[in-house]
Amino acid sequence: MDLQKIVREVPDFPKPGIQFKDITPLLSNPSAWAEIIDQMESLANEVRPNLIAGIEARGFLIGASLATKLGMGFIPVRKKGKLPGKTIGIDYELEYGHDRLEICSNESLNKKSKILIVDDLLATGGTALATQRLIEKSTATVVGFQFIIELCSLKGRIKLPQSVPIHSLIKYN
Amino acid sequence: MDLQKIVREVPDFPKPGIQFKDITPLLSNPSAWAEIIDQMESLANEVRPNLIAGIEARGFLIGASLATKLGMGFIPVRKKGKLPGKTIGIDYELEYGHDRLEICSNESLNKKSKILIVDDLLATGGTALATQRLIEKSTATVVGFQFIIELCSLKGRIKLPQSVPIHSLIKYN
Repeated sequence: MDLQKIVREVPDFPKPGIQFKDITPLLSNPSAWAEIIDQMESLANEVRPNLIAGIEARGFLIGASLATKLGMGFIPVRKKGKLPGKTIGIDYELEYGHDRLEICSNESLNKKSKILIVDDLLATGGTALATQRLIEKSTATVVGFQFIIELCSLKGRIKLPQSVPIHSLIKYN
Repeated sequence: MDLQKIVREVPDFPKPGIQFKDITPLLSNPSAWAEIIDQMESLANEVRPNLIAGIEARGFLIGASLATKLGMGFIPVRKKGKLPGKTIGIDYELEYGHDRLEICSNESLNKKSKILIVDDLLATGGTALATQRLIEKSTATVVGFQFIIELCSLKGRIKLPQSVPIHSLIKYN
C-alpha cells in the first residue's frame, strides 16, 4: 500500500508557507492504519523496548496504538501543566520562543526501562531531541525513535543521537 | 483485576477542590491497559460501530488503542484550530465560558457511519454531548459512549441521549 498517497497535504497550515502533512486520512482508513502499526511493530521488535513514549497529541494516537499491539505500557509526554502530581520536565527552544515537555514522575520509569519514542512527524527534530533528554532525566534509556512521516530536507535526523535507530515510514524530500 | 485501585487520585488538580483521577498508572501497566481495551472491545461488539471517535487528548489514547484492536478507523475530535483544512465544528458551554470542538470534514463520515465515542472520563457530560452533536452534524450516527471512569455524582449520564448504550469501566460515587 502506498501510504504517502493517503496523506493529505494542506497548504498554509498552521501558518503561511507550510505544506501540512495531515495523517487523519491514514487514521480513518483501517487498512492503512493497520499497515502503519504492523510496520512499527516489526521495527519495534528490532530495538526491543519495554515501554512506548508518545508526544501529545498526535503521538498519543500512534504510541497508544503501538503499545496496545505490543502489549506494553505507554508513557504520555505532555505540554506544560497538563499532567497531575509530581512531574519531570524539560525546557527547549522552538523556532520562535520556548516550550516545555513533561512526564509523570512515575515509578514505572527506572534504569531498566527501555523506551521507544514515537511521534507522527520528524521535522527539525527539536521536540524529539527534547523528549529523549526528558526520558533520560528519569534514568530510563531511549532505544529508538519512530515516526510516520519524515521531512528529510529539514535534517532533523542529524540532531538526534546516532547511537539508536531512527525509523520513518513515509519520507518527503 | 481491580482497575480502580490502580487509578491515582491527585488532590487539587487542575484546580483547588478537584480530586483528579489520573489514568497514567493504568497506561503504563500493560496488564491493566490490556484489560481496559479488552473490556471496551467486548462492549463495542455489542453496539457494532464501524468507526471510533476520541476526544483530545486522553480520548486519543483510548480511542486509537481500541480502533487498532478492533481493526477500525479512528476520528480525532480536537479543540478549535488544531485540525487542518475544512472542518465541522460545534460551540458548547463549559462551567465558566465556552469552548469549541472540531472534526475534519472527512469523506469517511457519512450516513452509513456508526460511531462509538470514547473518552477517559464522564463527569458533567458536556463534552460528550457536544461530541455527539458534532458527529451528527456530519450525518453519521452515534451508536454508543464508552468511558474508563464515571463520576456518578455529577450525573453526566442523564445529559446524554438515552437511546444509545453508555458504558464506563470504573465508577466513583
